[in-house]
Amino acid sequence: MKKRDIPKETVNRLPLYLRCFERLLEEGEYTVTSEALSRRLNLNSYLVRKDLSRFGDFGTRGVGYKTRKLAEKLRAILHVNRKWKVGIGGIGNVGFALMTYSGFDREVFDIAVAFDKDPELIGKEVNGVIIEDEQELTRRVKEESVKLGIIAVPPAEAQKVAEKMVKGGIQGLLNFAPTQLDLPEDVRLTHMFFTKELETLAYYL
Amino acid sequence: MKKRDIPKETVNRLPLYLRCFERLLEEGEYTVTSEALSRRLNLNSYLVRKDLSRFGDFGTRGVGYKTRKLAEKLRAILHVNRKWKVGIGGIGNVGFALMTYSGFDREVFDIAVAFDKDPELIGKEVNGVIIEDEQELTRRVKEESVKLGIIAVPPAEAQKVAEKMVKGGIQGLLNFAPTQLDLPEDVRLTHMFFTKELETLAYYL
Repeated sequence: MKKRDIPKETVNRLPLYLRCFERLLEEGEYTVTSEALSRRLNLNSYLVRKDLSRFGDFGTRGVGYKTRKLAEKLRAILHVNRKWKVGIGGIGNVGFALMTYSGFDREVFDIAVAFDKDPELIGKEVNGVIIEDEQELTRRVKEESVKLGIIAVPPAEAQKVAEKMVKGGIQGLLNFAPTQLDLPEDVRLTHMFFTKELETLAYYL
Repeated sequence: MKKRDIPKETVNRLPLYLRCFERLLEEGEYTVTSEALSRRLNLNSYLVRKDLSRFGDFGTRGVGYKTRKLAEKLRAILHVNRKWKVGIGGIGNVGFALMTYSGFDREVFDIAVAFDKDPELIGKEVNGVIIEDEQELTRRVKEESVKLGIIAVPPAEAQKVAEKMVKGGIQGLLNFAPTQLDLPEDVRLTHMFFTKELETLAYYL
C-alpha cells in the first residue's frame, strides 16, 4: 500500500481509531461494530467503514471488527509499534510542559534530547533529560538519530531552530511556535496552534 | 445559514483560511486566487473553492478572492470578532504554559479566570491573572460569564473539573488531559492529544 493513496484526512483519523480500539480492549470489548465505533467517535459510520477498509477488511458482517487485531494493525500502519526519539528545541514554558507531559507513551515517543540557548537552563535535568546547548543541536540530533522534532522556541527563533533540526536529519516537526515555517518539501510539518482549536470551539457557541 | 449545514471538516479548516488571509494582508496581498490559496495551505483547490463558497461567493473569476473582505467574514463566522473569556482548570506545567502562551490574541481569547486546588498556587498571579481555589470554579465561571474552558488538570481529575465548568455555564471545552470525558451532548469538546500529532507525523516517516 502506497502512502500517497491514503488521504490526509483519513491519516489524521487513524490515531483516533487506535485510541478507541485501545480503550475498547481495556474495557474487555474484543469486537466492535462500525455503528458502535462511529457513535463513540462521533463520525459517520459509512466514513468509518471506508477508512478502515483501506487497511484491509477486518470486519465481519453482524460481528464487527476485531479490536485487538485492528489495534495492532493500526500501530503498525502508524509506525508506533517501535520507539521514536524526539528532540525538543526551546525549554520555556511550553517545552517544559512537554518534557513533563504524562500523555506520551515513552515506549513510543521518547524525548531523548532537549535544547535551549539560555546558559541558565543548559545542563539542567528535566524528567531525566539534560538540557543541552542549542549550538549543539544539529550535531547531537544526528548523533542520536532523532527523526522527530518539537519546536517550542519563541516565534522569532522558530525558523532558525527548525533549520538546525532538519540539518541534523529530523524528518517530522511539530511546531508550537505561533508562526509559519519555510522548510524543504520532504519535511513533514504539523502546527499546534492552540488558537485554532479555540476558534473552532467559538464557532459553535 | 444553519450551523448544522457546514461539515465539521470544513469548520476545522476555517481557522487555517483565516490565518492565511491575515498573513496575505500583512504581506500587502489584497486578492488571492483559489490556486494560490490551495498551494499555501497544501489543500486541493476544488476543496478550497467549495469550502469558501459555503459562506457566500467572494471570488471573482480571473481575479480571485478579496482577502480583507474574506478575513472579516471568517472572523464573523468563527465568532472571533469579539472577546471570549476563557477559564483554565489546573495550573500545572501545561496550564502555566497556556497562561503565558504568546500565540493567543488576548483581544479575542482572554484568559479571565484560572483555578487550581493546590494551596501553594492559589492567590499567585500569572500573566495578570490570580489563580483561584478550584472549589470556587463553578461560582466564579458563572459570575464572569465564561463560556470557554481549558482542562489542564491530571487525567484522574479531568472529569470532575470539566463537570464543574459545565455547571458554571461553560459551553466549549479544550481538554489537554490525556483522557476521555463524558459530558452533556450540547457541550462542545476538543481534545488536544499531543500524542495524536506525533503519531500522524510518524506515519509519514
